[in-house]
Amino acid sequence: MNAVDSVTHAENIRLSEDEKSVIILDQTQLPNRQIYLTLNEPEKLWDAIKLLQIRGAPAIGIFAGYSMYVLAQQFSDLPYEQFLNEFHKQKEYLNSSRPTAVNLSWALNRTENLVRDQHNLPTAQIVKNLGLEAKKIHQEDIEMCTKISEYGLTLIHNGDGILTHCNAGPLATSRYGTATGPIFLGRERGMNFHVFSDETRPLLQGARLTSYELQKAGVDVTLICDSMASIVMKQGWVNAVFVGCDRIAANGDFANKIGTSGVAILAKHYGIPFYTLGPSSTIDFNTPGGEDIKIELRDPDEIKTMWYKEPMALKEVKCYNPSFDVTDHSLLTGIVTERGIVYPPFKENLKKLFSK
Amino acid sequence: MNAVDSVTHAENIRLSEDEKSVIILDQTQLPNRQIYLTLNEPEKLWDAIKLLQIRGAPAIGIFAGYSMYVLAQQFSDLPYEQFLNEFHKQKEYLNSSRPTAVNLSWALNRTENLVRDQHNLPTAQIVKNLGLEAKKIHQEDIEMCTKISEYGLTLIHNGDGILTHCNAGPLATSRYGTATGPIFLGRERGMNFHVFSDETRPLLQGARLTSYELQKAGVDVTLICDSMASIVMKQGWVNAVFVGCDRIAANGDFANKIGTSGVAILAKHYGIPFYTLGPSSTIDFNTPGGEDIKIELRDPDEIKTMWYKEPMALKEVKCYNPSFDVTDHSLLTGIVTERGIVYPPFKENLKKLFSK
Repeated sequence: MNAVDSVTHAENIRLSEDEKSVIILDQTQLPNRQIYLTLNEPEKLWDAIKLLQIRGAPAIGIFAGYSMYVLAQQFSDLPYEQFLNEFHKQKEYLNSSRPTAVNLSWALNRTENLVRDQHNLPTAQIVKNLGLEAKKIHQEDIEMCTKISEYGLTLIHNGDGILTHCNAGPLATSRYGTATGPIFLGRERGMNFHVFSDETRPLLQGARLTSYELQKAGVDVTLICDSMASIVMKQGWVNAVFVGCDRIAANGDFANKIGTSGVAILAKHYGIPFYTLGPSSTIDFNTPGGEDIKIELRDPDEIKTMWYKEPMALKEVKCYNPSFDVTDHSLLTGIVTERGIVYPPFKENLKKLFSK
Repeated sequence: MNAVDSVTHAENIRLSEDEKSVIILDQTQLPNRQIYLTLNEPEKLWDAIKLLQIRGAPAIGIFAGYSMYVLAQQFSDLPYEQFLNEFHKQKEYLNSSRPTAVNLSWALNRTENLVRDQHNLPTAQIVKNLGLEAKKIHQEDIEMCTKISEYGLTLIHNGDGILTHCNAGPLATSRYGTATGPIFLGRERGMNFHVFSDETRPLLQGARLTSYELQKAGVDVTLICDSMASIVMKQGWVNAVFVGCDRIAANGDFANKIGTSGVAILAKHYGIPFYTLGPSSTIDFNTPGGEDIKIELRDPDEIKTMWYKEPMALKEVKCYNPSFDVTDHSLLTGIVTERGIVYPPFKENLKKLFSK
């Protein structure tokens, strides 16, 4: 179980023993160097998010909670008003590292709300409670991932082949992760799966992170180029496709890493069940359908020059580089959340998920 | 028309003015450096093929013809028997550069057959005729590509969006190429197409070669990752898919660069016509169906380390790296050859193509 422990249990984010620092596995160094960073200065904490040393929405939220706890200890002897001022200043600074990361501001607001709510407690006590709150954010994520993994595990059998795209595993979340959560959970229980990890161009999260996590956990993983998903499915090697999700619309259409919709179409063609796994907070009833999800366009250099010794296309060649695509709900077998698995018709059944 | 000329007309393979050397555009230097190599030594000619300075089945055939002509001039004063011996030796040596390249041995055998057939002519005359034969091989390829391009051009309209995968253009053949031939031919006639070039992992022929050729010819080309074909089709930007082919079975199933079958499935899903374009010599009636085509598996390092500043996955992570996949004929709208366009039912109509 040592290999499993090294990734899924010895958390990629944790407090130091003295609780004065946050320790993270530097994701920018993977897969070549497994370097842990011990952070407690505001600038270093800010950099960690900005430079993607820590990434994945839930992981950023957990990191933000611990960061505010670590920082608050450094001015815990201030009287409340000054303490609150300093806390707010530090929180706003950290929040500026990735303004569009919803989980970052969500977690930061949660810590500031605690500080404001507990204004009549001694600041030393507030700081203690911040520590408990940060651990609670972490614990909640672990519980959510565990539940998603448990539900997901009911969909597959020992020995199955599973294809995944991008990274929604332990590095992006906590403990098991979401899309690959059932695989890590099953592995702990002695089950063996054959996982095909799409490398996921252009940022290669599948190669750099997913195949890394699975290999370290002792899972039988095979890395393929995105263009090889079709032949792998045709060979009969894939029993199910598991992917994460960035946003799920009210009708079940969902946005996820670019390439997901193509994998879904292939799965449908070959008659392979296709699931998305994620927290129920990803379901956005204010977004009626996929056409309402705005797709972020990114820098052409991610396609032409990033990672390479020299450019792979002429400077003047145009690129289209969408970060996400939308998968139509008609291609989706089910949505796996911590509240349970939702099957079609999604519009009705997604609502029911919250009325239980 | 200058930009068009630079790639589609000023051949990527040609004889020097004095006909004592072969001049090629070094494809290993693309897209960053446009370097022409002037070759006439046996070792340098051998290296050119081995090192992929020249690649693409038809291009290798053309190069082989010119190479034997250039070499034969160097011993044209030998008496016939010694001339034949030397010719045979040089031919076998060149053939050893890429033993599995069918077009290489085909072109080399064609030149040796000429030398043997003309044994009662003076060797100086044989060498002259070798020059004519080499030019004929080249001319035949140009004519074939032109015919394929003409037929292909009847399938699209000015302003259309066309998606292609891998490289089957001028660099791999002569003049117009096959899969992208209609685009170059149309461009010469003042037509404008919007081409989406899949980068084509892992060897990136789409990025390095196809987008290069099209850009240089003044075609509106957009480079995308293979995983972006789905979103581009969903946007309604693609009117037809054009790809090359390595082998076509008797039932219309065909092998082409890895990822082609996935593109075909996407095209079917979005209702977009999907064509393969290639010489009728690619049709192999001895191969009943796609299941009879053996797929070459290549080095995992093409996925994990090639092109990169440092590895993108752990050393111990397995890769599956097939060079080709087979596209089922049910996904195919038509097969475009120099003899005409073949539509379903392919089994019957492919036979008819040769009985005309």
